[in-house]
Amino acid sequence: MDNILRINTRTRTIQYETTPESYLKTGGRGLIAKILLDEVDPACEPLGRHNKLIFAMGLLTGTNVSSASRVCIGAKSPLTQGIKESNSGGTTAMRLAQMGLKAMILEEQPEDDHWHYVKISKGACSLEPAEAYLGMGTGEFCDAIHKLYPGAAVSCIGPVGEMLYSSAGIATTDADHKPGRFSGRGGLGAVMGSKKIKGIVVLGKDTMPLADKEGFMAALKTYTSVVKDAPSTLNYRTLGTASMVRIMNGHGGLPTHNFSLGRFDGMDQICGETIFDVITERGGDGRTSHACMPGCVIQCSNIYPDIEGKAIVSPLEYENLGLLGSNLGISDLDTVARLNALCNDMGIDTIETGAAIGVAMEAGVAAFGDSEAALGFMEDIRRGTVLGRVLGNGAVVTGKVFGIRNVPAVNGQAMPAYDPRAIKGMGVTYATSPMGADHTYGATARAQIEQASSVGQAELSFSTQKNMAVYDTLGFCIFCSGAVGNQHQLIADLINARYGWSVDVPWLKSIGEETLKNEHLFNQKAGFTKAHYKMPECFTERVLPGVNTVFDVGQEELEQVVEAHLEGRRTLKP
Amino acid sequence: MDNILRINTRTRTIQYETTPESYLKTGGRGLIAKILLDEVDPACEPLGRHNKLIFAMGLLTGTNVSSASRVCIGAKSPLTQGIKESNSGGTTAMRLAQMGLKAMILEEQPEDDHWHYVKISKGACSLEPAEAYLGMGTGEFCDAIHKLYPGAAVSCIGPVGEMLYSSAGIATTDADHKPGRFSGRGGLGAVMGSKKIKGIVVLGKDTMPLADKEGFMAALKTYTSVVKDAPSTLNYRTLGTASMVRIMNGHGGLPTHNFSLGRFDGMDQICGETIFDVITERGGDGRTSHACMPGCVIQCSNIYPDIEGKAIVSPLEYENLGLLGSNLGISDLDTVARLNALCNDMGIDTIETGAAIGVAMEAGVAAFGDSEAALGFMEDIRRGTVLGRVLGNGAVVTGKVFGIRNVPAVNGQAMPAYDPRAIKGMGVTYATSPMGADHTYGATARAQIEQASSVGQAELSFSTQKNMAVYDTLGFCIFCSGAVGNQHQLIADLINARYGWSVDVPWLKSIGEETLKNEHLFNQKAGFTKAHYKMPECFTERVLPGVNTVFDVGQEELEQVVEAHLEGRRTLKP
Repeated sequence: MDNILRINTRTRTIQYETTPESYLKTGGRGLIAKILLDEVDPACEPLGRHNKLIFAMGLLTGTNVSSASRVCIGAKSPLTQGIKESNSGGTTAMRLAQMGLKAMILEEQPEDDHWHYVKISKGACSLEPAEAYLGMGTGEFCDAIHKLYPGAAVSCIGPVGEMLYSSAGIATTDADHKPGRFSGRGGLGAVMGSKKIKGIVVLGKDTMPLADKEGFMAALKTYTSVVKDAPSTLNYRTLGTASMVRIMNGHGGLPTHNFSLGRFDGMDQICGETIFDVITERGGDGRTSHACMPGCVIQCSNIYPDIEGKAIVSPLEYENLGLLGSNLGISDLDTVARLNALCNDMGIDTIETGAAIGVAMEAGVAAFGDSEAALGFMEDIRRGTVLGRVLGNGAVVTGKVFGIRNVPAVNGQAMPAYDPRAIKGMGVTYATSPMGADHTYGATARAQIEQASSVGQAELSFSTQKNMAVYDTLGFCIFCSGAVGNQHQLIADLINARYGWSVDVPWLKSIGEETLKNEHLFNQKAGFTKAHYKMPECFTERVLPGVNTVFDVGQEELEQVVEAHLEGRRTLKP
Repeated sequence: MDNILRINTRTRTIQYETTPESYLKTGGRGLIAKILLDEVDPACEPLGRHNKLIFAMGLLTGTNVSSASRVCIGAKSPLTQGIKESNSGGTTAMRLAQMGLKAMILEEQPEDDHWHYVKISKGACSLEPAEAYLGMGTGEFCDAIHKLYPGAAVSCIGPVGEMLYSSAGIATTDADHKPGRFSGRGGLGAVMGSKKIKGIVVLGKDTMPLADKEGFMAALKTYTSVVKDAPSTLNYRTLGTASMVRIMNGHGGLPTHNFSLGRFDGMDQICGETIFDVITERGGDGRTSHACMPGCVIQCSNIYPDIEGKAIVSPLEYENLGLLGSNLGISDLDTVARLNALCNDMGIDTIETGAAIGVAMEAGVAAFGDSEAALGFMEDIRRGTVLGRVLGNGAVVTGKVFGIRNVPAVNGQAMPAYDPRAIKGMGVTYATSPMGADHTYGATARAQIEQASSVGQAELSFSTQKNMAVYDTLGFCIFCSGAVGNQHQLIADLINARYGWSVDVPWLKSIGEETLKNEHLFNQKAGFTKAHYKMPECFTERVLPGVNTVFDVGQEELEQVVEAHLEGRRTLKP
């Protein structure tokens, strides 16, 4: 089956290739790591012609399995200089899979100034002129595309991806055809921009072939009810990820004023419960629960409306409440929602942007809590003023420029909204991830552990990373993991019925391990050593008020985590 | 002898320590590498409390041996994240040696906001309040200090060091008490600023003890006449380093318009011959030849006066004519001299600044050749506007912010004025130096080789690097190497007479090798791998017009150079 689509953006040749044997039994994040290792010089420059941007589908993507059609996008990252995979919900992966594609590879870069978008339908692909769309926000671009192709699935960059900001992301349309889903992290939007591709447009739908239709339907029924009725799902469906605001504030690890505090005195105004009430009260477009991809039964998303009921942003999520809210000292929900919406529209990572503005505020560029200034920075970023370009290149560049050493970032990428001194397992994840600070790589904030103690955090992060790698490689939403827990057989059954294979739970574990190993291998070849996997001094030496600790998981333990992944070990200790 | 002075800038304790046995027979750059390896965690943050700023004297520093009293300053670099030693002429090292010091180590950093300068005299050292001097340029600070202590030797930072710009340098006063000598590279001024030290002030003079005075005088006589009468010295004494402008333009490797061209149509207006004529014609303060330290017989320096004969800058040198002249398309000598003087006064590296402005000009922030804009940028840098801070953090940060990939830098540090595609041995030096792109680390531009051919360049750079390491470790000016050539016995004789030792020429070679090995070892521990020692793609893939080549010395050859240094090999090939 010719289901790898390769697009050379320099020669503008398009070809369909047969999937190599070794790629058949992997997908998503795992397939990205394999292709990058096979085809991309790890030492290449991320925005140069040797880097490739890869869309890879998961093994059950395109089927009607709930939460199994994340769009996984990867490349060498301009932000971290290492491997990066960033996935989001939305409909693009589902459609690409239904068009028969296992992966799409964008390679090389144009020698001229022409921009294109990629149009894909069943067995056909073309590069269409995109000059007319340059400068458009993600919303405007998708609207324009939907006028031509109603209902198309779109993944695209905004103006900041065109300007090659290293925190530019890629937006993907959701079930309502709005580009609110983000592969935000690692600057993948800049990689797309460096290839002068404004977007990917997928037309048409189809059903996926099933080797054992009856078996599939049976397995699906069990899986769906397990996911639907899990306590974690119920929680996500009510308050979404925003329930974490109160929890993290309780832990004393809610980033506040550029991670100088872990509790925010405006917490009550931006917490999940308040969001629920405001959405309910305002009505209109508002939804307290919402599915980002068709058929999802978790429905963690929401639609946050303004006072007149008109949607401001969807979803309003925890990371953004933390980074664009408490971290900036902003407790006005409408402002946070607007900042989030502006980020989405210009196509920039909200986490990186919130962190960068936090650093700038510490430098005195504006005061913490100054909503007007924060909204003004968005204008700077979009217009490409010098300040905007600084902020748009992330927290580390902002810290360098303003001479600020308290920069919440590891390997060039800003931390999500969990202070690593309060949630130490998350700190281990930040420090040992080959993708810079990234919560989705090994989220430990809900684990049953004394969060602020250093004991057992390396083990916890290690095993959580392994588990997440399985879900990411399958193209599953990691929120499934809370529901599915250890019942991995549910997933194996679905895969077997889909393909006529006979994989088992140990095999599932092995694909996660393989992914982690390949990613660390790529980074090793890119020049990462154990010295790179560490927590910055502003967290190891600066005490977090309230919790009264520093990040004190030892460097040796952090290195063990990386080593264990590289060696594909099942346990942290050899 | 208690001749290591250690200053803790946090506790403000000062102590004199006995020099360890293993430090006795080394100095300058070699001693810096040893101390950093022994005392500083290579993975530490350069502007944090774990980094140390070291002044280390050469073995003949303080004597009246011509060109043997360079001030060698080192630390982990905020620009390259690796080891850095940067030396300059002037009088500080001579005086520190005469005060009985072999090294001075500034460690830790204050927890409060107080600034100090270090005052040193024979057997005494104190930290003096420096708040009154904050914001002062290097010239104003030195004038103020000289009012208190006439004739003191001073090494200091300007406002940009206080602001922690990663291209801030350290200025040192010359024989005329003007701070025109620069340890400019690698951001050592920011390291000094991070310790809240404005300057080092050395009072008093003395003569150095000599084990065999007669032998010393005899050796000195021979050495001096060899250096004085060498053809290379004659050349430096007439046109200074500026003679290189015409030579490099001939090679097609004079950086022009952000290294996009190698020949400059305004070359005749900024070449050494023109400078000679202008200085001669204008008279006044002007000097076509000038010694940066007492007793130097090479006298490569000059004093460039304005039309009324008033000194603008001293010296006006090749690197600055290239980076602040042709690289920016500026052919007006007075403007180049003024840009140079402004850089010196605010204490910023001219090479990094010229390269950063070149990148900004490519981005369209101003047009190439726009003198007014270039002078305006200096104001931005000094005032700390956002643009100024971007430029002040160097070419790589500027490239990131403006989305420009043609950035002439290796490992974070900008290239001096030799295009590596035209002068390929220099390119090997840039790529393989543990200090980022740095010509003084292995200058091959005057070697007898086909400069634009890739053949033999790795060997040439390798052996040149070894030779330079000897001179730097001795605290000698590398311009001696042109004069002394292979007659290293001249130097061994001086050392033996100074200390009563019996070192020989192989020993001299060995101290250079040891230095290189230690530096690469430090970087290895800091996280450098072979993937870091490479030429950026804008030089390996973009053809240099006129010369019609790319930089094509193979990556494997570059890695061999690093490996050979790390292993302390005498030859490039094992």
